[in-house]
Amino acid sequence: MTDLPARVSINEEGPREGFQIEPGPIATADKIALIEALAATGLKHIQIASFVSPKLVPGWADAEDAVAGFTPRPGVDYTALWFNAAGLQRALAFRDRLALAGSISLAASEAFSRRNLNRDRAGNLEAMRKQTALHLAAGVPVTRLGIMAAFGCNFAGDISAEQVFATIADGLSIAAEAGVTLTRLSLADTMGWANPRQVERLVGEVRARWPDLAINLHLHDTRGLAVANAVAGLRQGVASFDATVGGLGGCPFAAHPGAPGNIASEELALLCEEMGIETGIDLDALIEAGHLAERIVGHKLPSALLRGGSLRALRARTAA
Amino acid sequence: MTDLPARVSINEEGPREGFQIEPGPIATADKIALIEALAATGLKHIQIASFVSPKLVPGWADAEDAVAGFTPRPGVDYTALWFNAAGLQRALAFRDRLALAGSISLAASEAFSRRNLNRDRAGNLEAMRKQTALHLAAGVPVTRLGIMAAFGCNFAGDISAEQVFATIADGLSIAAEAGVTLTRLSLADTMGWANPRQVERLVGEVRARWPDLAINLHLHDTRGLAVANAVAGLRQGVASFDATVGGLGGCPFAAHPGAPGNIASEELALLCEEMGIETGIDLDALIEAGHLAERIVGHKLPSALLRGGSLRALRARTAA
Repeated sequence: MTDLPARVSINEEGPREGFQIEPGPIATADKIALIEALAATGLKHIQIASFVSPKLVPGWADAEDAVAGFTPRPGVDYTALWFNAAGLQRALAFRDRLALAGSISLAASEAFSRRNLNRDRAGNLEAMRKQTALHLAAGVPVTRLGIMAAFGCNFAGDISAEQVFATIADGLSIAAEAGVTLTRLSLADTMGWANPRQVERLVGEVRARWPDLAINLHLHDTRGLAVANAVAGLRQGVASFDATVGGLGGCPFAAHPGAPGNIASEELALLCEEMGIETGIDLDALIEAGHLAERIVGHKLPSALLRGGSLRALRARTAA
Repeated sequence: MTDLPARVSINEEGPREGFQIEPGPIATADKIALIEALAATGLKHIQIASFVSPKLVPGWADAEDAVAGFTPRPGVDYTALWFNAAGLQRALAFRDRLALAGSISLAASEAFSRRNLNRDRAGNLEAMRKQTALHLAAGVPVTRLGIMAAFGCNFAGDISAEQVFATIADGLSIAAEAGVTLTRLSLADTMGWANPRQVERLVGEVRARWPDLAINLHLHDTRGLAVANAVAGLRQGVASFDATVGGLGGCPFAAHPGAPGNIASEELALLCEEMGIETGIDLDALIEAGHLAERIVGHKLPSALLRGGSLRALRARTAA
């Protein structure tokens, strides 16, 4: 396992993903409590809110109150998500407490873009050109390319490596036209189609073609393979992963009622820790934050580790 | 991933593990229905019952009725578990319908043996010598060595490779004394301590030392790493895994209330199928058997795939 990174950065998306999909309503104070508990675990990147239409996503109608209400911790990047000019404007009001960054977001599956964004490939590229210009005009850097449905799609089936390469090339050309240099590439297994063999191969090929792009994996645990897919990424040197505490998030696709959402942050942190990879996270504190998340949403979350508990406590007991 | 096997055999232990730990009571007819549903999926090895003391394991007080009641399917090996002479005698009554095989079962952790069997290493070796003789006298072959707690132990902490090697050597010497040749070695992550790096290294070393032993992995998903650990085994050529449909089983150790038990058979089958490894299993039928198991035990099982559903159905839809 020679390409394993020495250190992994976990981008915690639990608050944003979780409170978007939970039936709720969830009190703003509870959202703030979870954000602050997560920031106390050693996590350095936390996506805390979504500036989206309250009509479409009622769970984030209180985004302003949540973002204004938490106490920032030095050294932690707090980020948010938005999809259009209105959302960007709402985010800009919090420049002092949010790390604002723009993203070029494309899907390797055109069928997915049509279904979810009502745009074909050309329409999506045009939308991203406009959004990139909007970000740059507002002084928000655009350094990240995100590829949704990079490993398969409920509406298009299997996705070939060539489709992913072409989508990456699309994103890079939008950036080049806008005069910005992308440094980060996120490959998303949006609907849980990936397997470890595919992840290892695709990441290896992407890395060989674009060695200057730092690769992030956004993995969903729809079918139980997320942790195994993370290992496949680690073997190819991937050092950045999105994850959600407890596996908060669920799956918004109708094909998977009740299916788990993102890979659980604490399972990913345990995996890294046990394999000798640093995360900077206090795993026991992260597990506690997972239990807090369960109390807030009022039900058990998919993470096995929230039940199993850390090995640190058992090691301490046996050493005593 | 050059050492991946072309074909994997899944040893289904759902009925035996699941009905042992579920609070129940579960009707014998339901147990039989699940056994028959599993045998219809293409699974070739199913552990269906435990001949243990009804006082200790009330869930298997009806072992005789379950074993007598199902309709065997040609080509499927139905097995059972027992721990002593009384259990063996009960199993022998079903020679016509059970594939009876003895096992030398040791723990790499002496603390585990003391806690669970009330025997130290010497006591355990003596018990296994007697049990081996008992099996051979009854005409039951002894070809398998099982090592519990091979990757870590709640009562002893980390377990070194040397402890595992020494325990394997113990088992082989018991076999040699009895004049039998062991062909199969099962390494069990009894309490969910394993990580992929450790599995790959330990299996690689065991395989190098004892190339004639076919290695089986018995993985628990206590902390969410079981599927990733299975991939690590596959990379070292492991072609036999124990698993339980839906992840039936739970964890009998007090440190992990509510933690998942064994790796879920259908997640393992999906993993193999997607990685191009044959299992001989109809995955959709196995998922259906998982849903049947959930109806029988009256609650959801830990398997994510039971929620996420197979990719086959989605591929068929997108191809249409």
